[in-house]
Amino acid sequence: MSMIIIMKTGATPGQIENVIARVEQRGCKTHVSKGEETTILGIIGDVRNLNFEHIERLDGVDRIVRIQRPFKLASREFHPLDTVINVDGISIGGKQVVIMGGPCAVENRQQLLQTAYAVKDAGGQILRGGAFKPRTSPYSFQGLGEEGLRILVEAREETGLAIVTEVMEPGMVSLVSEYANILQIGARNMQNYALLHAVGETKKPVLLKRGIMSTIEELLMAAEHILSHGNEQVMLCERGIRTFETYTRNTLDISAIPLLKQLSHLPVIVDPSHATGKWDLVEPVSRASVAAGADGLIIEVHPNPEEAASDGAQSLKPERFKALIQSLKPVAEAVGRTL
Amino acid sequence: MSMIIIMKTGATPGQIENVIARVEQRGCKTHVSKGEETTILGIIGDVRNLNFEHIERLDGVDRIVRIQRPFKLASREFHPLDTVINVDGISIGGKQVVIMGGPCAVENRQQLLQTAYAVKDAGGQILRGGAFKPRTSPYSFQGLGEEGLRILVEAREETGLAIVTEVMEPGMVSLVSEYANILQIGARNMQNYALLHAVGETKKPVLLKRGIMSTIEELLMAAEHILSHGNEQVMLCERGIRTFETYTRNTLDISAIPLLKQLSHLPVIVDPSHATGKWDLVEPVSRASVAAGADGLIIEVHPNPEEAASDGAQSLKPERFKALIQSLKPVAEAVGRTL
Amino acid sequence: MSMIIIMKTGATPGQIENVIARVEQRGCKTHVSKGEETTILGIIGDVRNLNFEHIERLDGVDRIVRIQRPFKLASREFHPLDTVINVDGISIGGKQVVIMGGPCAVENRQQLLQTAYAVKDAGGQILRGGAFKPRTSPYSFQGLGEEGLRILVEAREETGLAIVTEVMEPGMVSLVSEYANILQIGARNMQNYALLHAVGETKKPVLLKRGIMSTIEELLMAAEHILSHGNEQVMLCERGIRTFETYTRNTLDISAIPLLKQLSHLPVIVDPSHATGKWDLVEPVSRASVAAGADGLIIEVHPNPEEAASDGAQSLKPERFKALIQSLKPVAEAVGRTL
Amino acid sequence: MSMIIIMKTGATPGQIENVIARVEQRGCKTHVSKGEETTILGIIGDVRNLNFEHIERLDGVDRIVRIQRPFKLASREFHPLDTVINVDGISIGGKQVVIMGGPCAVENRQQLLQTAYAVKDAGGQILRGGAFKPRTSPYSFQGLGEEGLRILVEAREETGLAIVTEVMEPGMVSLVSEYANILQIGARNMQNYALLHAVGETKKPVLLKRGIMSTIEELLMAAEHILSHGNEQVMLCERGIRTFETYTRNTLDISAIPLLKQLSHLPVIVDPSHATGKWDLVEPVSRASVAAGADGLIIEVHPNPEEAASDGAQSLKPERFKALIQSLKPVAEAVGRTL
Repeated sequence: MSMIIIMKTGATPGQIENVIARVEQRGCKTHVSKGEETTILGIIGDVRNLNFEHIERLDGVDRIVRIQRPFKLASREFHPLDTVINVDGISIGGKQVVIMGGPCAVENRQQLLQTAYAVKDAGGQILRGGAFKPRTSPYSFQGLGEEGLRILVEAREETGLAIVTEVMEPGMVSLVSEYANILQIGARNMQNYALLHAVGETKKPVLLKRGIMSTIEELLMAAEHILSHGNEQVMLCERGIRTFETYTRNTLDISAIPLLKQLSHLPVIVDPSHATGKWDLVEPVSRASVAAGADGLIIEVHPNPEEAASDGAQSLKPERFKALIQSLKPVAEAVGRTL
Repeated sequence: MSMIIIMKTGATPGQIENVIARVEQRGCKTHVSKGEETTILGIIGDVRNLNFEHIERLDGVDRIVRIQRPFKLASREFHPLDTVINVDGISIGGKQVVIMGGPCAVENRQQLLQTAYAVKDAGGQILRGGAFKPRTSPYSFQGLGEEGLRILVEAREETGLAIVTEVMEPGMVSLVSEYANILQIGARNMQNYALLHAVGETKKPVLLKRGIMSTIEELLMAAEHILSHGNEQVMLCERGIRTFETYTRNTLDISAIPLLKQLSHLPVIVDPSHATGKWDLVEPVSRASVAAGADGLIIEVHPNPEEAASDGAQSLKPERFKALIQSLKPVAEAVGRTL
Repeated sequence: MSMIIIMKTGATPGQIENVIARVEQRGCKTHVSKGEETTILGIIGDVRNLNFEHIERLDGVDRIVRIQRPFKLASREFHPLDTVINVDGISIGGKQVVIMGGPCAVENRQQLLQTAYAVKDAGGQILRGGAFKPRTSPYSFQGLGEEGLRILVEAREETGLAIVTEVMEPGMVSLVSEYANILQIGARNMQNYALLHAVGETKKPVLLKRGIMSTIEELLMAAEHILSHGNEQVMLCERGIRTFETYTRNTLDISAIPLLKQLSHLPVIVDPSHATGKWDLVEPVSRASVAAGADGLIIEVHPNPEEAASDGAQSLKPERFKALIQSLKPVAEAVGRTL
Repeated sequence: MSMIIIMKTGATPGQIENVIARVEQRGCKTHVSKGEETTILGIIGDVRNLNFEHIERLDGVDRIVRIQRPFKLASREFHPLDTVINVDGISIGGKQVVIMGGPCAVENRQQLLQTAYAVKDAGGQILRGGAFKPRTSPYSFQGLGEEGLRILVEAREETGLAIVTEVMEPGMVSLVSEYANILQIGARNMQNYALLHAVGETKKPVLLKRGIMSTIEELLMAAEHILSHGNEQVMLCERGIRTFETYTRNTLDISAIPLLKQLSHLPVIVDPSHATGKWDLVEPVSRASVAAGADGLIIEVHPNPEEAASDGAQSLKPERFKALIQSLKPVAEAVGRTL
């Protein structure tokens, strides 16, 4: 049974038949259960393309109870085994916890190369860095654009690190795909469906960030938009949600890590830098994320955080980043992973 | 004074000079106030293009206190008089409270024309209706697309109502602009900057919906993105925010109406249908919105809500919509407005 | 039907019988509906004293769907007519919108008498003022205690206004009841059950404030605690909930007003002062509350807000309070009420 | 400097002098800094007993910026070394991570003794169990009362485990203190100041749970209420906050653990059972909490969760609890702790 329709007390036989007819039009079957006062209709079949609001407004309907989850391709039910994504020889979603590091924004060649070597040296596998930056203020630095992408590629060539970088609009997907190994969808764009469809039509791995006020179900539905356009390589990224607490930038939803692993087969990455907004919380929260089962971390690293063009307050200096990676190794081992 | 920098207890003269030098490089002036333990720097000038995170990470800095608001073109300080937007002869932001009504989605010619006549008959001025629909599920109805736009235009020709409809991606702005009188930016796209810039480059009035996860300041910053690209015709739309309450779809932030009118010169429109999600709450909440000072309402109306392709549960039938408009008139008069 | 139990696919006959036996032990009846894969049990009778968590953990149970609301005495179903509370000749919950005004805290005889005369003069019926103050900081003014109660009584004798004041602990209920006409339960104590039971055992009207973290259902359940101890005179007070928005102190949940009127027979009072935290928002939000159907308002008034011992920023001066009451009259009339 | 007062542009000399006079009346010193347009007053001394709202309403004042935190006795600044609480020979807040386990409610002698032996056997040190239960519904099981306390003591005598149990009202503090080793203040009572003061006057260790919608600062202020009444033995308990997410009961604020350790000297305990509401999330979230630096865990254990009188869905069976404790040991070691 994938859905239940509860009829109102006193619903007429005609109303009940009308509901049944509409549900069956869409290819579902119904199982009627008449009580003394209330009739319940159990719906069998795939209800994902029924219009729930439509049914809820039909005469005589009291309410609908969904049993089937609204996501399918993203669900573990549909795909019981973990999805492991191969990025240039690095397996994401397997036994090893993957480390992505780098600055919030690519600022210049020197800054990026210096950071890339630091990430490599500390044991990271993937370099992050924004060339196109979504900024709350139109007066803030919006990123270097394609020049930033070229610098990222140079860093890849020098260090062998793979590259993850954000794409912000459908029209830029093919350009960014030429340079990046992983396309990042930022939190503000988690429900930018035109963009999700555009990356869904590429063959590039996608790092999909959870919106700061999006539920776990909405994150999985956003993944479903990408998957349903043909791209199976999606990583889910927990990066903190918006709450009433003001001492931290956002509140990392630590339970989301095991919950996403239960509900879905997709790899789960955690961004402790944006979640906390404070470099001195990044370390304990990174350890907690690995202990909770994260498949990877994406961490802001900057050679001179006090000079950073954005998000300096949450960036680690290379030496602290290296020390953090060292401290993560025994935690990973304690939960049966490598790093 | 537009910003204050509080130095740490024990900050050295060199650290203080370094901070001053950096601030003055960007064209601001500083006023130093040395206490026994703490030095405070008052910053004079436009600090909107200073990098706050950068400054906060400089050695010796304890914290920054912003005094100047981050938005400028959207602020009432910058533009003391109310902006009144003229849409095909209808003034939005003036004495009259403007009524926009129509279905969530354009479904077919008959449904839309029937609704348009009902909106007209009830006293509405603008017809709403989605041709492109952002949907949480990739399996839901995504709208009729350009066919929907053509039906909207036909309804305009028949009834004389102006049209507001959503645009979801930068590449579609010019197409939608050919048909619509007002371009709507949906709540999920409030921080889709590429889209904001694209509508900012048109001459079309824009209805900008507040994101369910967005603060009032972020809404005004989103407006600033549009304004700074040259389009001065922006309406702000409060449509409910996400809270822990589950009896309603969202929580209408009623205080946002007078607050936006204080902070900004832009017209404020309220969407009670999405805010509550329940048609029987739309009426009292509409009256409250007018009493609180809203410049307009955008309300879902559907001839057969139980058949609606989306959001049926929050749509009013034509007769209730008409009765609502009647009940709003004395409320508008009670607060010195017409309707 | 008051509850539905959905069994897991593959639940055994023994598991189903076990669930039925446990439900029927508690005096409910079950209606079994066997589908091909899933069995559903409709439960008939009063399920309020069933242990839901218990049932949800029984072998073979997938989930429970509640149909009956968890509150009973507070529900409109149980008590279809509006409850009208008589406080010293003033009807609360009837056609007239009742105005309560006064300072956050009673500070001294002169301040309170001056305010009382101002409230009376402006057309208010009830005087508010705290003698015992719940304060976030142990170092803040905690109220005048019993001395404050005596001053309140003096003001009542002078002006004829009834008194509402807060009681903070069970041991003080009988003392405060000797002085006050209405016992206020503050937002922080909405789930202080010992206190709810203590006021439930008096015959005094109670003004129950919604906790800033509490759902509408939890507010009604708190009222149920009072009602079930024998006191039927409960007023529900919406005073703003905590959200992510920081421009206002709290977010007034305007939809809660009509929703509480639908769900319950109890009068609904709104506190726009605590909801907004800013005196210049109190006026539009008061008008909105009356337009949405509030039965009364409780507003902070202080002769010298800048001298107020607490919450000065949200207090109105007497002349503004009087002007506000004047502006509310046409709004009340517009929605068929008097004031 | 502990506070800054920013005067409005154009504040008069008389207004400035008035502000200074009022601040100095309360024993603080001021440091005046006159800019061309704006005057800033730096306040030196302990501002905790200044009335901020009062000052903010004085003529000519634009706003106040607090620098000093509002809590003192709870702050690490005031008490740099970790507080270690000795409960019957068990050190809480030291190197060892302490385990508290037991049922939500004491139901009967057999249930509690069986659980107590299981907690002991798994390596726990402290037995939890509610004798007085705060329940949302007046129709739910409210606990065994004093009979429950007697059963807890019997379990302590049999197993040697210390006891933590909730006290719900000031009048019961002395009774509960006769039986319990640790007094628990529940989340709903975090701001029940009469209760905080009552436990503050005992010599018993207190486990103070964070309210589900209370900030970290409010939690520390609640601790300050207890500390300022003379009781220095307070443990802070993170147990999840209320957010918009509905897949979990609450959202565990993992960052609160390191943040509370930075801001305060008090031990930090985590309750993963209430935070998640689902037994299968308790395990990963417990590991995460230890990795983030928690000084202890309080976990629900029940021999027959499906029979539990409350919170069965989040209780672990004894064998899973034992396995969890085993899995926590390497995580504790990985972060330099024992368990």
